[in-house]
Amino acid sequence: MPMMNRDQYLDSLRSSDHSVYLLGKRLQNVVDHPISRPAAMAIAETYQQAEQDGSKGLYTTVSHITGEPINRFSHIQHSVEDLVSKVVMLRDMGRKTACCFQRCAGTDCINSVYSITFDIDRQYGTRYHGRFREFIRHIHDNDLIVAACMTDAKGDRSLPPSGQADKDQYLRVVEKTPGGIVVRGAKLHITGGVNSHELIVLPTRALQEADKEYAVAFAVPADTQGITFIYGRQPSDTRRLENDTPDAGNLYYGGCEALVVFDDVFVPEERIFMNGEYPFAGPLVELFAAHHRCSYGGCKVGVGDVLIGAAAAIAESQGTDRASHIRDKLAEMIHMNECLHAAAIASASLGRATPAGSFAVDPLMANVCKLNITRFPFEISRLAQDIAGGLLVTMPSLDDQQHDEIGGYIKKYMAGREGVDSDHRLRLLRLVENITMGTGAVSYLTESIHGAGSPQAQKIMILRLAEMEKSKDCAFHLCGLGPRE
Amino acid sequence: MPMMNRDQYLDSLRSSDHSVYLLGKRLQNVVDHPISRPAAMAIAETYQQAEQDGSKGLYTTVSHITGEPINRFSHIQHSVEDLVSKVVMLRDMGRKTACCFQRCAGTDCINSVYSITFDIDRQYGTRYHGRFREFIRHIHDNDLIVAACMTDAKGDRSLPPSGQADKDQYLRVVEKTPGGIVVRGAKLHITGGVNSHELIVLPTRALQEADKEYAVAFAVPADTQGITFIYGRQPSDTRRLENDTPDAGNLYYGGCEALVVFDDVFVPEERIFMNGEYPFAGPLVELFAAHHRCSYGGCKVGVGDVLIGAAAAIAESQGTDRASHIRDKLAEMIHMNECLHAAAIASASLGRATPAGSFAVDPLMANVCKLNITRFPFEISRLAQDIAGGLLVTMPSLDDQQHDEIGGYIKKYMAGREGVDSDHRLRLLRLVENITMGTGAVSYLTESIHGAGSPQAQKIMILRLAEMEKSKDCAFHLCGLGPRE
Amino acid sequence: MPMMNRDQYLDSLRSSDHSVYLLGKRLQNVVDHPISRPAAMAIAETYQQAEQDGSKGLYTTVSHITGEPINRFSHIQHSVEDLVSKVVMLRDMGRKTACCFQRCAGTDCINSVYSITFDIDRQYGTRYHGRFREFIRHIHDNDLIVAACMTDAKGDRSLPPSGQADKDQYLRVVEKTPGGIVVRGAKLHITGGVNSHELIVLPTRALQEADKEYAVAFAVPADTQGITFIYGRQPSDTRRLENDTPDAGNLYYGGCEALVVFDDVFVPEERIFMNGEYPFAGPLVELFAAHHRCSYGGCKVGVGDVLIGAAAAIAESQGTDRASHIRDKLAEMIHMNECLHAAAIASASLGRATPAGSFAVDPLMANVCKLNITRFPFEISRLAQDIAGGLLVTMPSLDDQQHDEIGGYIKKYMAGREGVDSDHRLRLLRLVENITMGTGAVSYLTESIHGAGSPQAQKIMILRLAEMEKSKDCAFHLCGLGPRE
Amino acid sequence: MPMMNRDQYLDSLRSSDHSVYLLGKRLQNVVDHPISRPAAMAIAETYQQAEQDGSKGLYTTVSHITGEPINRFSHIQHSVEDLVSKVVMLRDMGRKTACCFQRCAGTDCINSVYSITFDIDRQYGTRYHGRFREFIRHIHDNDLIVAACMTDAKGDRSLPPSGQADKDQYLRVVEKTPGGIVVRGAKLHITGGVNSHELIVLPTRALQEADKEYAVAFAVPADTQGITFIYGRQPSDTRRLENDTPDAGNLYYGGCEALVVFDDVFVPEERIFMNGEYPFAGPLVELFAAHHRCSYGGCKVGVGDVLIGAAAAIAESQGTDRASHIRDKLAEMIHMNECLHAAAIASASLGRATPAGSFAVDPLMANVCKLNITRFPFEISRLAQDIAGGLLVTMPSLDDQQHDEIGGYIKKYMAGREGVDSDHRLRLLRLVENITMGTGAVSYLTESIHGAGSPQAQKIMILRLAEMEKSKDCAFHLCGLGPRE
Repeated sequence: MPMMNRDQYLDSLRSSDHSVYLLGKRLQNVVDHPISRPAAMAIAETYQQAEQDGSKGLYTTVSHITGEPINRFSHIQHSVEDLVSKVVMLRDMGRKTACCFQRCAGTDCINSVYSITFDIDRQYGTRYHGRFREFIRHIHDNDLIVAACMTDAKGDRSLPPSGQADKDQYLRVVEKTPGGIVVRGAKLHITGGVNSHELIVLPTRALQEADKEYAVAFAVPADTQGITFIYGRQPSDTRRLENDTPDAGNLYYGGCEALVVFDDVFVPEERIFMNGEYPFAGPLVELFAAHHRCSYGGCKVGVGDVLIGAAAAIAESQGTDRASHIRDKLAEMIHMNECLHAAAIASASLGRATPAGSFAVDPLMANVCKLNITRFPFEISRLAQDIAGGLLVTMPSLDDQQHDEIGGYIKKYMAGREGVDSDHRLRLLRLVENITMGTGAVSYLTESIHGAGSPQAQKIMILRLAEMEKSKDCAFHLCGLGPRE
Repeated sequence: MPMMNRDQYLDSLRSSDHSVYLLGKRLQNVVDHPISRPAAMAIAETYQQAEQDGSKGLYTTVSHITGEPINRFSHIQHSVEDLVSKVVMLRDMGRKTACCFQRCAGTDCINSVYSITFDIDRQYGTRYHGRFREFIRHIHDNDLIVAACMTDAKGDRSLPPSGQADKDQYLRVVEKTPGGIVVRGAKLHITGGVNSHELIVLPTRALQEADKEYAVAFAVPADTQGITFIYGRQPSDTRRLENDTPDAGNLYYGGCEALVVFDDVFVPEERIFMNGEYPFAGPLVELFAAHHRCSYGGCKVGVGDVLIGAAAAIAESQGTDRASHIRDKLAEMIHMNECLHAAAIASASLGRATPAGSFAVDPLMANVCKLNITRFPFEISRLAQDIAGGLLVTMPSLDDQQHDEIGGYIKKYMAGREGVDSDHRLRLLRLVENITMGTGAVSYLTESIHGAGSPQAQKIMILRLAEMEKSKDCAFHLCGLGPRE
Repeated sequence: MPMMNRDQYLDSLRSSDHSVYLLGKRLQNVVDHPISRPAAMAIAETYQQAEQDGSKGLYTTVSHITGEPINRFSHIQHSVEDLVSKVVMLRDMGRKTACCFQRCAGTDCINSVYSITFDIDRQYGTRYHGRFREFIRHIHDNDLIVAACMTDAKGDRSLPPSGQADKDQYLRVVEKTPGGIVVRGAKLHITGGVNSHELIVLPTRALQEADKEYAVAFAVPADTQGITFIYGRQPSDTRRLENDTPDAGNLYYGGCEALVVFDDVFVPEERIFMNGEYPFAGPLVELFAAHHRCSYGGCKVGVGDVLIGAAAAIAESQGTDRASHIRDKLAEMIHMNECLHAAAIASASLGRATPAGSFAVDPLMANVCKLNITRFPFEISRLAQDIAGGLLVTMPSLDDQQHDEIGGYIKKYMAGREGVDSDHRLRLLRLVENITMGTGAVSYLTESIHGAGSPQAQKIMILRLAEMEKSKDCAFHLCGLGPRE
Repeated sequence: MPMMNRDQYLDSLRSSDHSVYLLGKRLQNVVDHPISRPAAMAIAETYQQAEQDGSKGLYTTVSHITGEPINRFSHIQHSVEDLVSKVVMLRDMGRKTACCFQRCAGTDCINSVYSITFDIDRQYGTRYHGRFREFIRHIHDNDLIVAACMTDAKGDRSLPPSGQADKDQYLRVVEKTPGGIVVRGAKLHITGGVNSHELIVLPTRALQEADKEYAVAFAVPADTQGITFIYGRQPSDTRRLENDTPDAGNLYYGGCEALVVFDDVFVPEERIFMNGEYPFAGPLVELFAAHHRCSYGGCKVGVGDVLIGAAAAIAESQGTDRASHIRDKLAEMIHMNECLHAAAIASASLGRATPAGSFAVDPLMANVCKLNITRFPFEISRLAQDIAGGLLVTMPSLDDQQHDEIGGYIKKYMAGREGVDSDHRLRLLRLVENITMGTGAVSYLTESIHGAGSPQAQKIMILRLAEMEKSKDCAFHLCGLGPRE
C-alpha cells in the first residue's frame, strides 16, 4: 500500500472510533474541533513533509522489512546515519511547527521494543521479536502512527507497583484468557495518543519479581474497546475557540497529551511483546529513554530556532537589534540551543548496533542531552522575553486593532520603528507568548523537564554510565599512588 | 476622613466613570467582570489588611502631613524603618495574593516625586513641592489609590523622543492654556491603573533640551476626559469566564496592566509637578526606579513563597518529599527567593535622607536586587515545575472530576499517596500552573524582567554606582604600583 | 592598658613562644620569615587601622565590660548597628589586604560563646558566662588576638565522634585533674592561630550523650605546652622566598591556616566554658556559624573589590575597557560581589538580641550569604581571568624585565597601550594571579567554599529556617483547598 | 625514516640548539631541568602512546602523502572518522597526563594551512600549497613536532596592526631579500614551542590592505637564528625544584607556554605559505580556530576525567562517597564534562571536505564547544574543591609526614576512614590542587578561557554562523505574517 498523504491521514483520524473527552465533552473527531485540530495538524505535517519536494529525502527512507518507501518516523534505524538523520528531521519538524508534533515517541518506542524483544527471546526462548516484526510490517504497509504509552499513575512514588494500596496505579495484567490477556490501568501524559492509529504499551520502570504482573508490553489499536482518552488542558487553550484566533500565537500547530485509561482491555496473543519477563523491564525502559532523550535534542532545538528567530525579528521591529546586549543575548540563546543539538548529534554519532541488528544511540550522551533540555529552554525563554519587552504580557487582543474606538490607539502606539505596523509586532509577540507561556510552553518548557524521564533519572544514568573507575585509575597514577588494588 | 475599608474601596471603583476596554468591550465596572475582578480584589486586599487585626500594625502608619493614620502604601517614608517596613509589607501581600497587587508603583512614585520636586524648586525657584504636598494631603485624607504612569510607547528605540517620526510616541505637552496644559501620548504596561483613583504621569527617561516638551509630570483623576484604558490580555485569562473557575489556579486574585491613552487631556496648573525642567527627568526616573527596584524584593518574594509552598505540598501529596533531590531543589528555591529579599532589605537598611527630608533606598543595592529579580523567578519556576511533575500540563479540567463517565478515572488515577484525593493534588498543580504559565506568570516572570526597568538598565546603573576608582586604588597599592595619578 | 599599635603587636608575636612548624622547620618567629610574614602583617593591619585617622572610627568602639576603647574585632556586639559595622569593617579590611586577615573568626567566636554560656548557665546552673566575661575583660584590657579552633580531624565522616576507631579524631577531654582538664585532639584549618595570643576551642558539630566527652569549650594561650602548629602550604607560597618577590602578586599581605595539635594540654578550671553539656554543642556551632557566615559577606566582598578593580585596570592598560563585553563582565562581577554583601547587610540588619543581651545576626540570611559565597567568587575569578587575558599564566618572572638579554623583549612586547609599560601591566596581572591561583586563592576560593561550614551545611540550615508551613498555608488557601489541618 | 620513540624524541630535544630562557637563565636543554621537564615528558607521551600496544591503533595512521605510518598528531585529516579519532585521542591523552600536552595546536594548524594554501593558490595563482605539502612530507618523514605560533603582542587592542605606535606589535615582514624574507615581532603564549622541532607562524586576525605586511605565514626550525623563547611562569612552578616533588601534585607531566621573539629572522622562499594575500588571513585564522576549538572538547575533557576521578577517590577516602549531595555533585561534574565532549564530537561528526580534499570540522559546533570550555572547567573545579574539603589548601607539605617531630601528628590526624593513610589522601588532594590552583590550572582554567580565542570571539562566530534568517522565516509563517520580503 502506498504511503498516506496528509489528507488521507486526517481522514483516517476522522473515521477513527476512539473515545476522546475534551473539557467534559466526547469529541466527534479530533481533527475538526478548534482545540484539538492544531495537534492533529502538527502530526499531519509529518505526512506532508514526506510527500513534498525538498523535504521528502529527509522524511522518507526504505523499510528494512518490506523494502518499500516508508516515513522515517516509522523506521527501525540500522546505521549511525539513520540515527543522525532522525535528529536532523526532528529539528526540521520543530522549526516548521514550533510545537510537539508527537510522533517521535512512537519512533523511539518501536526501535526499543524491536531490540529488547530480540534479547528476551534469546534469554527465554520466547517469540516476541517475530511478532513485533509483523507488527512493524503492518505499520509500514499502512503508514500508521504509533503512540508510546509508558508513564503510569504511580500513586505513592515511594512504593513499588506491587506495594500500592490501589494495585492499578501501575498498568497490569488482570486476567489471562485463551488467546490473550486483559489489562487494567492508566497511562499518563500520552503524547499524540489521540492522533494515533496504534498504541504501544510498556512498563514505566525496572521491576522485581513481586511486580511480575506489571511486566507487560503490547500493542492495540487506539479505538480498542475499554480505552478512553482524557485530553489535558493547556494554558490559553480556549483561545483556539475565539474568532480566527490570532491571539493563539502559533496559528496552525500545537501539541497534546492525554490520560489514557485501560479499563480491562483485551490484548490478543500476537500483539503481546513482553509478559512477565520482569528483568527486561528495566532495559526496555532505559533503551527507550536513551532513544527518546536523544530525540529531544532535535525537536526542542527546532522550537528553539523559532523562538530565537521571533526574538530577533521583534528586536528588529523595535530598533534594538544592533544593541550590544541584545546581540549578546541572541548569541547566548543560539549557544544554548546548539548545545542541546550537539549532545543529540554526539549521541547519534556514537551509536552502536544492538544484538537485533538495529542501532541504538550512545546512552551517556543521550542522558547528557536530556539533562540540558531540562534547563536551557527556560533560559532561552527568559532571554526571549527579555528581548521581547513587557508588551508581551500587556498587549490587548489582536482583534482590538480592528475596534472602532480603540483600534486607532493600538495601531498608533504599538507600532514599532518606521515601516513596522502594530500587527507585525503584536503577532510576533503572540508567538513568543505561545511558546513561553501558552499552549507551546507545555512542550517547550514543562515537557522538556519531564518528558522521557525527569532530570533526576538522567543524573542517575549519567553517574552509572560514566567510566569512573578508569578516571580514578588515572588520578592514582598521576599523583604517585600507583595502580589501585 | 477615616480610611476606607475594602468594600468602600470596591464601591468607589464601581462608581468610577473611567473608560476601560477589555477584549473589545467597554466595562461597566471593573469590580464585577470575572476577568478584571481578581485584580480589583488584589488591590482591595491592601485595604483589608489595614483594617484587620494582626496585619493592621504593618499596613498602617501616620501621615507626616496630616498626622492621621494612613495606609502604609500612601506613606512618604521618613526613616530606614519605614523603608524596611514597606519591603516586609510587600512580601506579606505577595504571600497573601500570589500576584501583582498593583499598589506599590504608586507608593514608589509619590516618594520619588516628593523628593525631586523639592530639588527642582531649589534649582528653578518653582513651587512644585508645595503643590505635591497638597496632592499627597488629598490622597491621605481620602485614602486613595495612585497609579504611576511612566513607560511611553517609544516607537523606534534607537531614537530620542524628539527624533521620532510620530512625536506622540512619548507623552508630551501639546498646548499651554490658561490655568493648565494639554497633554497627548500613551503610557504602556500601566499596572493597576484601572483600579486607581488618581494617575501620576512622569517621563520615562533622561531628556535633553530638544526633548523639553516631554519633561512633564502631573497627576489627574483616572476618570478624566480623554483618558482611555485598554486592558492587556494574559495567558489563560478567559478561564475566569468558566464556571466557578477552579482551573484558574489562583482563585481570588490577579494582576492587570493596561495601555493608558492620553488623547489631549487637560491638566490644571495645581496638578503639574514638572514642566520643562528636563535636567530633572533623569534623576526622577532614577529615583523612582531605585525605590521600585527595591520593592520587587518584597512582592516577588512573597509570590515565590507561595510557589515554594505549593511545590513542597505537591511533593508531600506524591510521596516524594523525603527524596534528597527534592529537598535540594526546595533549598535552592528558598535560597534564591531569600537572595531576592536580602538585597531589598539591604537597600532599605542602607537608605539615606533626601534633601526633602524623605528617605531613599540605597540605589546600588536596589539595582542589584532587581537584576536578580530578572533571573531567579525563572529558575524558581523551573524547579517548581520539576517538583510538580508533568501532570502540571497534562491534567484535564478540574471540572472533569465531576463528570459522569470520566470523573471516576480521574479520581482514581490522579490521586496522590494514601489520603490525598485528586482534587487536592490537582488544585495545587493549577496554582503552580497559574504562577508559572498562567495569569500569574505575567507578573511573576515577564514583569520581573521588565517592570521597573529592563535588566540592561540595572547593569548600567550598577556599573555607574560602584566605587570602581577606590577598588583600582587598592589594586595598584597591593601589587606595588603605588598610588595612581 | 592602652590598645597596642601595629609594631607592639608584631613584637608580641616575636616574643611568643608557640611551637610553629613550616615546611619541616620550627620557626623562630612568624613575623620575620618571608612565607609567614604576610599573614602576620595582614592581621597587624587591624591594629594599624584602629590607630589611624580616617579608619579609627570604624575600627574601634567601646568595651561593654571595661568602658574603655577597644578594637572592634574584640567587641561583643550589642546592637544592629554593631552587627552592620562589623560587616562594613570586614569589607574595608578585605579591600586593603586582598586576603584573609584572620581575625574575624575570633570575633564571631567570642560573640557566640558569650551568648551560649549564658544559656548553658540558665539550664544547668553552671558559671561559664561569668568566667567568659572575665576572659573577655582580659582580651579587652590587653588588646589581644583570639583564634577560633573548631574543625576536628573527623576521620570517617560517616561516623560520630564516639564511633571513630581513633577516639582522638575529635578533640576530647582525656582526663579531669584538680583544677582543670586535659584535652587531646587536633583542630584543622585554624585561621590565624599562629598569629594569635589566645585560642578558643569549641566542638565542631551537634553531639549526642555518647559524645559527651567531646562537648568541651575552653580558651588557652597559644604558647601553652602541648600545642603544636603545623603550617599549611599554599599555591606559590615559596615565591615569597624569591628576591623582592614581585611575582608574589600581593606584595604585603596573605592569609594562613594551620593544623593545631593538642597533645594532652592542660586547661585550668577558669578557662573552661563548656564541659559535658552536649545539648548546647549544636546551638553553639550554629550560632558561631551564623555569625561567621555573615562575616564572609564582608571580607570576601572586599577581596572581590580588589579583584574587580585589578581587572578593570588591566582592561584600561590594554585598551579594551570600552568594549561592551568587557563592561558587561565588569557589571556582572560587581553585581555578584554586591549580592554577597547584600545578604550580609540583611543578616546584620535583621539581627536580634540574645538572652545574654548581645546581638545575633539573622541566621537565615547568614546562611543565604554564605551559600552565595561558596559560588560567586569562582565566577568572579573566571571573569577576572577572562578580562585579564592569557598573559596571566604565560608571562615570565617580573625580574626578567631587568635581564640583560631578554629584558628588552619583555618590555617591548608586554607593554600595553601607549603610556603603559610592561611593569604596570604585569604587576596587575600578578595580583589577579595571586587572588585566583596563588596564595590569595586559598581564602578567596577554597576557603569560600569550606570556611564557616561547607555548602551542604548551609542548605540544611536554609531548609530548616525557612517558614515553609506558612508558605504552604498560603498556597492551600489560594487554590481553594481552605485551611490545612 | 621510521617513527621516533619517546627516548629518541627526548634526545632530539636535548640536541636542539634553540635559545630558551627560564627564570632569567638560559637552559642547557629543556628535558633535564626540573621545571621544564614535565612539559617535555607530556609531549613525549604522544610518542610513547604511538609505539605502545593498546594505544597504537588510536595514535597512528597512514600519511596521505608518503603512505607510511605516522603519528596521528601529524595527520592531515581526510574523513569524518579522522576528525572524530583526533578528538578521542586528545581525550585519552588528557586523561593520561592531566595537563596540556601541547601537540594539538600544531595538528590543527597544519590542517588549516593545508586547506587555505590551496584556496590562496586558486585565487592568486601562487604555489603555496605545493610547498606546504613538501613541508608536511618533511614532518611525516622525520616524525617531528610542529608548534603553532599565532597570537601577537597586540599593543593597544583598539587599534589595527598598522595603527600601532610600535609597528612590531604584530609580527611582520620587515625586508624582502633574495630567496626569502626577514620577519620581526613576537608570538605570545606559544604552547609547546620549546619542545618542538618546527614553528609555523600565521597571522592572528583578519587583515585589511593597510596591514598587508602582516599577512605572512611560514615555517622555520625552532633553533633558527634570531628566535628566542622566554618561558612563562606558572603557579607553584618551583615546587618542581623541591626534593622528589610530591607536593607538585601531578608528578610527571605539565604544560608550558613561552613568549617567542622573532628578532629579524630569515625565512627562505620554500617555507613561506602566505605573503601579502591579506584577504586570506581571516579565513586562515577562522579555520585554525574552528579546528582548535573542537580539539578543546578532547583534551580538557580528559583532564576533567582525572579531576572527577580524583574527587571521587577523595570522597571515598573520607567516607562521604555515599552522601546524596556528593553523588549529585559528581553527576553534575560528569554532565558538564561530557557536554564539552558532546560538542566536539558533534563538530567532528558534522565535518565536511574542504576544496583541498582535507576535512574541516563544523565551525558552529566547534565554537559552541569552545564557549562551554571557557566556563565549565571553572564549575568543575569548584565542585572538585567542594568535594575535596578545606584540607586542600591547609595541608602541610607531604614531606612533613616523614618529619621526626610532627610526622606522627600528620599521619594520625590526616588519615581518612579506616584503611586510608594520610599519604593516600594528601596525594590525591595535591593532584586536585595542581589542576585547580597549581601548574595544571594554567591550562585547565585560564587557557580554557583564552586558548583558541577568547569567549567573545566564539560569540561573534556563533551569531554569524547560525541560520538566523531561516529561523525568522519560520517565525513569520507560524504567527500568520506570511513570507518575509
